[in-house]
Amino acid sequence: MTYLNEHYLKLSGAYLFPEIARRVDAYVQDNRQMESRIIRCGIGDVTEPLTPAVISAMHSAVDEMAKAETFHGYGPPTGYPFLREAIAEGDFVKHGINVSPDEIFVSDGSKTDCGAILDILAQGNENRIAVTDPVYPVYVDSNVMAGHTGAAQGDGSYEGLGSLPCTAENQFVPKIPEEKYDVIYLCYPNNPTGGMITHQQLHAWVEYALKHEAIILYDVAYEAFVRDENLPRSIYEVEGARQCAMEFHSFSKSGGFTGVRCGYTVCPKELSGKTTSGEKHPLHPLWSRRWSTKANSVSYVVQRAAEALYSPRGRKETYALISHYLENAHLLREGCKSMGLTAYGGEHSPYVWVACPDGLKSWEMFDSMLREIQVIITPGVGFGACGEGYIRISAFNTRENVLNVVERMKKLTLASV
Amino acid sequence: MTYLNEHYLKLSGAYLFPEIARRVDAYVQDNRQMESRIIRCGIGDVTEPLTPAVISAMHSAVDEMAKAETFHGYGPPTGYPFLREAIAEGDFVKHGINVSPDEIFVSDGSKTDCGAILDILAQGNENRIAVTDPVYPVYVDSNVMAGHTGAAQGDGSYEGLGSLPCTAENQFVPKIPEEKYDVIYLCYPNNPTGGMITHQQLHAWVEYALKHEAIILYDVAYEAFVRDENLPRSIYEVEGARQCAMEFHSFSKSGGFTGVRCGYTVCPKELSGKTTSGEKHPLHPLWSRRWSTKANSVSYVVQRAAEALYSPRGRKETYALISHYLENAHLLREGCKSMGLTAYGGEHSPYVWVACPDGLKSWEMFDSMLREIQVIITPGVGFGACGEGYIRISAFNTRENVLNVVERMKKLTLASV
Repeated sequence: MTYLNEHYLKLSGAYLFPEIARRVDAYVQDNRQMESRIIRCGIGDVTEPLTPAVISAMHSAVDEMAKAETFHGYGPPTGYPFLREAIAEGDFVKHGINVSPDEIFVSDGSKTDCGAILDILAQGNENRIAVTDPVYPVYVDSNVMAGHTGAAQGDGSYEGLGSLPCTAENQFVPKIPEEKYDVIYLCYPNNPTGGMITHQQLHAWVEYALKHEAIILYDVAYEAFVRDENLPRSIYEVEGARQCAMEFHSFSKSGGFTGVRCGYTVCPKELSGKTTSGEKHPLHPLWSRRWSTKANSVSYVVQRAAEALYSPRGRKETYALISHYLENAHLLREGCKSMGLTAYGGEHSPYVWVACPDGLKSWEMFDSMLREIQVIITPGVGFGACGEGYIRISAFNTRENVLNVVERMKKLTLASV
Repeated sequence: MTYLNEHYLKLSGAYLFPEIARRVDAYVQDNRQMESRIIRCGIGDVTEPLTPAVISAMHSAVDEMAKAETFHGYGPPTGYPFLREAIAEGDFVKHGINVSPDEIFVSDGSKTDCGAILDILAQGNENRIAVTDPVYPVYVDSNVMAGHTGAAQGDGSYEGLGSLPCTAENQFVPKIPEEKYDVIYLCYPNNPTGGMITHQQLHAWVEYALKHEAIILYDVAYEAFVRDENLPRSIYEVEGARQCAMEFHSFSKSGGFTGVRCGYTVCPKELSGKTTSGEKHPLHPLWSRRWSTKANSVSYVVQRAAEALYSPRGRKETYALISHYLENAHLLREGCKSMGLTAYGGEHSPYVWVACPDGLKSWEMFDSMLREIQVIITPGVGFGACGEGYIRISAFNTRENVLNVVERMKKLTLASV
């Protein structure tokens, strides 16, 4: 019988969102009359429609596909030049950052990229890998699947996977570790805490990586939410990062593309890895080969949609779209504060990270909010042990729902615990 | 320094299509006046536009994305029910084949699936893997990347990867091997030879797999080209296949979706693998987990496009589209025969597989056709050692170009070798 990848059997169940669904279902079963009142601020999925510039670009692209003279079959394996050039110019060169179009790899989204990157790194235990706690679960699960960890520890962590605690004390930016890691995942604006990193802090991480010849996998899925010019929107704003970092971008949140599916990675040509015999090789050709062998790039229509985000009209519309969610986040954050709750994030991020009062645990707070005010949030402990005692509220919603959540929260007694 | 996946360094250069491009470029450099005469019958990319049913479905889906009430964010990880149900009904149930919607996994194409499947199988050398020769290079390269092979042997093959020769003698269907393999890749209608398998032959392979508890990865990317009711369009037409086969489908060729990007796999619930300790586990939950962790499914607009292929209008249009390419293949095949060449395939396939005359080698034939008649084909040896002495002509072209190729081939002297 064929051998399967038994690392998959180490995975804890995808417990977080299914467990949320289970509890909501049980509640609705017993309280049918409440079903229509439920407001979902759990999963970070956008609610606003695509903007007119994007819609118009997609219709045009569909029309091109209808005529032989303008039809597009297979595209270049890592994306059309029109999109890679728009990205390089709009996200980097314009801001004085040195990234060229052939260092841009277009994909169907950041989640794909986060998993795919492990294809070109050593299998097994050669690399010591570190993730933050709390963390976006995909970094962890994809490492478990690739055999880079031991067994599950019962608290969401896995043997052999380094943990970088992000707490209120360190403002959700992990301190530089004593240990030497080879691969470090960082995500800012942070999911789930909504925390942000400063230039100085990011610089310290780049220094660490250069010193240890490590690679930082830098996830900026939420960079569109950074409006403060003093904060870094790309790791390549830091000198030396081209030698030690790959960057993961997504149009899911910036353009509202969760249902459109497009993102990209940056792999600078200076970035290298080594063989077990110590030979140094650039990663760029490996990453190129990975994509040309294992995918046929992204739908032409989708690439034209992404391109539209970089047009003057697209930029303006996207700015307004992000402003909507940022204002939501502001309302949620201030709402929490006005009730005396301690709330973080929500300033450069769509996520508000709220400390549960009175020593409440994440799931207790979840249950109270569901039962008392019919608002679904994500329990912080679902993102890792350091998330215990917190909840994440997503600002991806309509204004009406957000205002309702703020109003309802005032009535939250937490007496149901 | 971070360790890289050094199996990538074993890969022979992506020599085939870059080498074709290099030779064409060199020729054009010396013969500028010939550039506009070049006709490309190399890469298997469709040339006809998307059909009206698909175009109309895409426009509607784009419109839905423009309004909050009908906007779609994240979809189900393995595809929308509307598409999975249309596939199960249209491709299976309707033909009396037992496949249910939750056994359908929608993806952005077969190439992705062919690489991804190795994620859930054991890493390293536990499984003995066999591919045909000649072969679609993705099966080979993805196994090299995953560390399932030794070094490149110089003829396109790799140490440790089993080879199943497909020759004119066995009509391009490999004979059942004496050796025991755990994973076998089969592709019918075959790329590159255009050969087809009979029910009886497929039955023998299923028997082999059941006997050895092996898994057949059955690629039916070209199944839309099978018009003969006596030939199998799915391995699940054979009893027992649900216990031993996964099937890979693509809309690239059936719907002309090479630039749209959509396909699917079938993973029956009965299909199992084992751990090194001999425990048996179904693959279906592993494959589900793979997709929900490593991707966010396919663009909503693309899934609506694929669904449209199953509507009565979509079916009719697709039938006409495939008929166009089949007629092209027929013309190319008969054209070759009328010149006295031995041609295979092109009956249930868009590929005509032509034996080079007079002991000519594949690349010699390639060079002659380029220099004498400015027609680009794919040298058979690029698909494996058994492809030496053959060329593959793709029927994916306009009728005008195909008629031109047939006319020009009459003037081919092969004297330039």
